[in-house]
Amino acid sequence: MYSIEFLQNKIKQALVAQNFNLNPSQLYNPISYTISFGGKRMRPVLVLMACNLFKEDIENAVLPALGIEMFHNFTLIHDDIMDNAPLRRGRETVYKKWNTNIAILSGDTMFALAYKYFINTEKKILAQVLKIFNQAAVNVCEGQQYDMDFETTNNVSVKDYIEMIRLKTAVLLAASLKIGAVIGGANKKDADNIYKFGENIGLAFQLKDDLLDTFGNQKKFGKKIGGDIISNKKTYLYIKAFELAKNKTLNDLNNCFNNKSIAHNTKIKTVKNIYNNLKIKDITEKKIEYFCDKGLEYLDQIKVKDKKKNELKSFTKNLMIRDL
Amino acid sequence: MYSIEFLQNKIKQALVAQNFNLNPSQLYNPISYTISFGGKRMRPVLVLMACNLFKEDIENAVLPALGIEMFHNFTLIHDDIMDNAPLRRGRETVYKKWNTNIAILSGDTMFALAYKYFINTEKKILAQVLKIFNQAAVNVCEGQQYDMDFETTNNVSVKDYIEMIRLKTAVLLAASLKIGAVIGGANKKDADNIYKFGENIGLAFQLKDDLLDTFGNQKKFGKKIGGDIISNKKTYLYIKAFELAKNKTLNDLNNCFNNKSIAHNTKIKTVKNIYNNLKIKDITEKKIEYFCDKGLEYLDQIKVKDKKKNELKSFTKNLMIRDL
Repeated sequence: MYSIEFLQNKIKQALVAQNFNLNPSQLYNPISYTISFGGKRMRPVLVLMACNLFKEDIENAVLPALGIEMFHNFTLIHDDIMDNAPLRRGRETVYKKWNTNIAILSGDTMFALAYKYFINTEKKILAQVLKIFNQAAVNVCEGQQYDMDFETTNNVSVKDYIEMIRLKTAVLLAASLKIGAVIGGANKKDADNIYKFGENIGLAFQLKDDLLDTFGNQKKFGKKIGGDIISNKKTYLYIKAFELAKNKTLNDLNNCFNNKSIAHNTKIKTVKNIYNNLKIKDITEKKIEYFCDKGLEYLDQIKVKDKKKNELKSFTKNLMIRDL
Repeated sequence: MYSIEFLQNKIKQALVAQNFNLNPSQLYNPISYTISFGGKRMRPVLVLMACNLFKEDIENAVLPALGIEMFHNFTLIHDDIMDNAPLRRGRETVYKKWNTNIAILSGDTMFALAYKYFINTEKKILAQVLKIFNQAAVNVCEGQQYDMDFETTNNVSVKDYIEMIRLKTAVLLAASLKIGAVIGGANKKDADNIYKFGENIGLAFQLKDDLLDTFGNQKKFGKKIGGDIISNKKTYLYIKAFELAKNKTLNDLNNCFNNKSIAHNTKIKTVKNIYNNLKIKDITEKKIEYFCDKGLEYLDQIKVKDKKKNELKSFTKNLMIRDL
């Protein structure tokens, strides 16, 4: 089995070998800029790891893995426009550095290029692979729409929220794994199991992100702590707190999120206090553990030797032990 | 051979049978709204006509034809954001009726759905069909970027302009035809010839659009005459006029396009006068004829019985005799 580091490096090299130095430069420069951002390359690595679970030779999975990475970066460019986000990974977002029109169009082009990476997939599995990718792409759009809808919805339930992050985040991790597995020759049952593994790990991953945004270590998390609280984002923590809060606590919570005159630091401190009183951190950690365990059960069911699963297990562990 | 009207109707019925009444409704309502706009359905009809040139049974071409129509409508939604266009075919554009974020995301979803329509194409030609579609999709984005670049470029040559409209407009007509031909079982040479036919007809079509925008009959054209002149759009007419104008005429032309205080009607009238003096209308008509003839030469080379080509010939003729 190849190590995560080896696969990350393989993806990095494959991306460097791509030529985005094309015309019109106003269209391709933002693509080149976005792809050079770096990041963990989690999704393409998952494609390769899943392929490697079933097959030693992973070469056929490399271009589809780049397709997944290209697609993911396209969604980031468009999401940043929609979220008015000026920065990503510490650098200016495309619509800020260039403009909205260029960000729309470069994103569209990346979406088209994503498909291009899939087209040379072996003929007999091409339709199957494309169906998985295509369904994930539609789901990601649906998830982003629900996320935007939630900004102006008052009664978002935990169930609604989990469905939203399933579509927006988890499905792409699941699809990455399933695509890798299919290219590696997995049978239908194993491919479905790895999808479910990815879906659950993806949910856990997003909940962990929610947790880190409020309780994380700023240096390690890389973003300002408390951003979700400041923007009244309906995260798992927020929804769960409103579900559990009663009487004075509920009043305080309402006051924090509705009173626009509270200073940012005071707001973060007060909301965190309420979250602590309601044991929101523990509750969220339990939910993360629940999804992780559920994911690992699906992984267990896959019919390959146990030791082959070690890399995926340690990947999962790494995602989840990210610092608080 | 099926008539154009029959095929338009077939596309219309196939579109009506699609269900876009899905959730989240904020995402799918704009898709439904856009698809119900109507229009000539020129591109999907071309897919069916090209298929029919090689095969009696065109059923396998229907879903890919819808994919092309879906893609085309996606580009319109995003273009309307970029062009700040409040109206299309007399109705509010998506970003005006909803908002920019929804227009971006519904467009993205339509792009994904476009691919979905292609996935069930027969396995042995799926990769070939997707390559043609994918290349066209990338080219359309490139063309749109050049079009935006030209707004702030001073020396756009006729050659640059033709390349821009080739990418932005002609390539999709060409790809529609080639996809239909491949599904109909055309050999490589015939498929390439029908692509070149479409590319040339597409160029003629766009030049005709440029001509109608200035010299058209407002009622029949459906848009306000002179829009391109008012917005200083670098059309074939504009570029050719600047290429030919000398001395006082050049001064007058420069004055018209640079002096922001001229009333719209005066600007249109003066520019049209200059165009008339420079015989721009005749020159453009000759160029349209040139591309039409060139296109028809490629059609002639296709190895099917002549009478089978009648529908494509009359389609071409109809496009070109649109009223001045």
